[in-house]
Amino acid sequence: MSLNIKPIGDRVVVEAAPAEEKTASGIFIPDTAKEKPQQGTVVAVGDGKKDEPMTVKVGDVVLYSKYGGTEITIEGKEYLMMRESDIYGIL
Amino acid sequence: MSLNIKPIGDRVVVEAAPAEEKTASGIFIPDTAKEKPQQGTVVAVGDGKKDEPMTVKVGDVVLYSKYGGTEITIEGKEYLMMRESDIYGIL
Amino acid sequence: MSLNIKPIGDRVVVEAAPAEEKTASGIFIPDTAKEKPQQGTVVAVGDGKKDEPMTVKVGDVVLYSKYGGTEITIEGKEYLMMRESDIYGIL
Amino acid sequence: MSLNIKPIGDRVVVEAAPAEEKTASGIFIPDTAKEKPQQGTVVAVGDGKKDEPMTVKVGDVVLYSKYGGTEITIEGKEYLMMRESDIYGIL
Amino acid sequence: MSLNIKPIGDRVVVEAAPAEEKTASGIFIPDTAKEKPQQGTVVAVGDGKKDEPMTVKVGDVVLYSKYGGTEITIEGKEYLMMRESDIYGIL
Amino acid sequence: MSLNIKPIGDRVVVEAAPAEEKTASGIFIPDTAKEKPQQGTVVAVGDGKKDEPMTVKVGDVVLYSKYGGTEITIEGKEYLMMRESDIYGIL
Amino acid sequence: MSLNIKPIGDRVVVEAAPAEEKTASGIFIPDTAKEKPQQGTVVAVGDGKKDEPMTVKVGDVVLYSKYGGTEITIEGKEYLMMRESDIYGIL
Repeated sequence: MSLNIKPIGDRVVVEAAPAEEKTASGIFIPDTAKEKPQQGTVVAVGDGKKDEPMTVKVGDVVLYSKYGGTEITIEGKEYLMMRESDIYGIL
Repeated sequence: MSLNIKPIGDRVVVEAAPAEEKTASGIFIPDTAKEKPQQGTVVAVGDGKKDEPMTVKVGDVVLYSKYGGTEITIEGKEYLMMRESDIYGIL
Repeated sequence: MSLNIKPIGDRVVVEAAPAEEKTASGIFIPDTAKEKPQQGTVVAVGDGKKDEPMTVKVGDVVLYSKYGGTEITIEGKEYLMMRESDIYGIL
Repeated sequence: MSLNIKPIGDRVVVEAAPAEEKTASGIFIPDTAKEKPQQGTVVAVGDGKKDEPMTVKVGDVVLYSKYGGTEITIEGKEYLMMRESDIYGIL
Repeated sequence: MSLNIKPIGDRVVVEAAPAEEKTASGIFIPDTAKEKPQQGTVVAVGDGKKDEPMTVKVGDVVLYSKYGGTEITIEGKEYLMMRESDIYGIL
Repeated sequence: MSLNIKPIGDRVVVEAAPAEEKTASGIFIPDTAKEKPQQGTVVAVGDGKKDEPMTVKVGDVVLYSKYGGTEITIEGKEYLMMRESDIYGIL
Repeated sequence: MSLNIKPIGDRVVVEAAPAEEKTASGIFIPDTAKEKPQQGTVVAVGDGKKDEPMTVKVGDVVLYSKYGGTEITIEGKEYLMMRESDIYGIL
């Protein structure tokens, strides 16, 4: 589940969950949720900013702002590069 | 009353009270209160920001800015994800 | 004169004085004072921000910016929730 | 020359000098000086901000920005409530 | 792979990879990726800002924001001068 | 060359040099220099901001931004009240 | 190569290189480079900001942002007064 990239600072790479997925913890993201947070899995984590270690770790299932990240393509797959502050919480 | 999500940093998850509710402490939120703070119950709390522990805790009934939060859906129920600074006070 | 709410951080709840009131210290707020500070009584005070204790206390009669607060209704009465920085001075 | 109000933080209450006054130090503020600093006397001073004591004191004759203050009326007289940073210098 | 320029502060000089290149780690940047991060190689690195040493070093293959850098021409070749914060991650 | 005013904080009072003057160090300010820095002599200096002593002193001939100061009139003469950061350099 | 002016704080005076010059290190600035950094030689350096000593020194050949400086005329010659942060790197 880890990825061959080292994010800089407080950046995180997230693999977005497919739409309408229902997770183990039972969070349901309906297809029509346009403004709502997205769900995904953390696949790479930076070392954090000075004196501020990271909270999330690789493997965490997270809710994140759909407006916070930047799409990147690694080995033909789409991921999102975002800052930890774009992540709302860990499920 | 707790929820299966760990908010990041100073974020808080609040379950909004139904409109027109009258609480134990007697605060009445009329149906026409368009610009006024909303009332709800804290259901999840982050660990706070660096050197700034959180003030609110799970179970607190709070007044919050209706413009400060983001709607999230967990197990089919609507909640609000907000920062503690969006909370005005604890009832 | 105290109120059943605990403001978060540097927030303060103020009960506005009726218009045209003349206080013990003789400050007169005429009915036509449209842009001028308002006068009221502090009814609840937060614990302040990190390393910055509050200056005002419950019972203080204060002048405050009429643009700084948010109206809240508690037990059927109107109050103003504001930050201490919205208060100009203690009478 | 002191006034029955305690400004909060770095705020100062100033009694504006009448227009066209000529002070002991000889500063002349002509009637047509529209954009120029105003002159007045400090009548109340706050305790300053955290770790930043105040420089001005009650009785100081000061030049101040005419755009920095807020008019307040105390005992039927007009004063200006401003921050110390709105004061340019002490005459 | 190093370059005869010493960037100031947290600046970095990057040599952009040709479009559609496929790197050793398998990241594929298609020709049509208009909004996506760019890939390149670090050729010069500043000493960092006060108390914040640099993370990237000469020779690192990096993903960077295509909007963050400034084009410079050294010895007839194009490079990008950017801040380390414009770099998303190291491949 | 000193002046009967004590600027607050990092403020400085400057007496502008007449246009087209040529100083001892040979700086020539042509009449048509519309966007260029102005030259003048420091006549009063504040005590600086917290932990930041002042660099300029009374008597220094300085180049300053013509957009940074505020005109004041003392004893019938025009001066400029500015912050030290509006001064580019000492001649 | 030094100049009779002491810049304040982190300011630097740069003598711009003539257009299309080719330096010892081989950087070529073509006549049509409209948005690209400019090259010049540092002729005066301030003492830096509090706790932040300067990196560049008199005599350094530097690349700088053409939008960062202010033109000044000293002894009939044009120079640029800029902050060190407007300098990209030392050649």
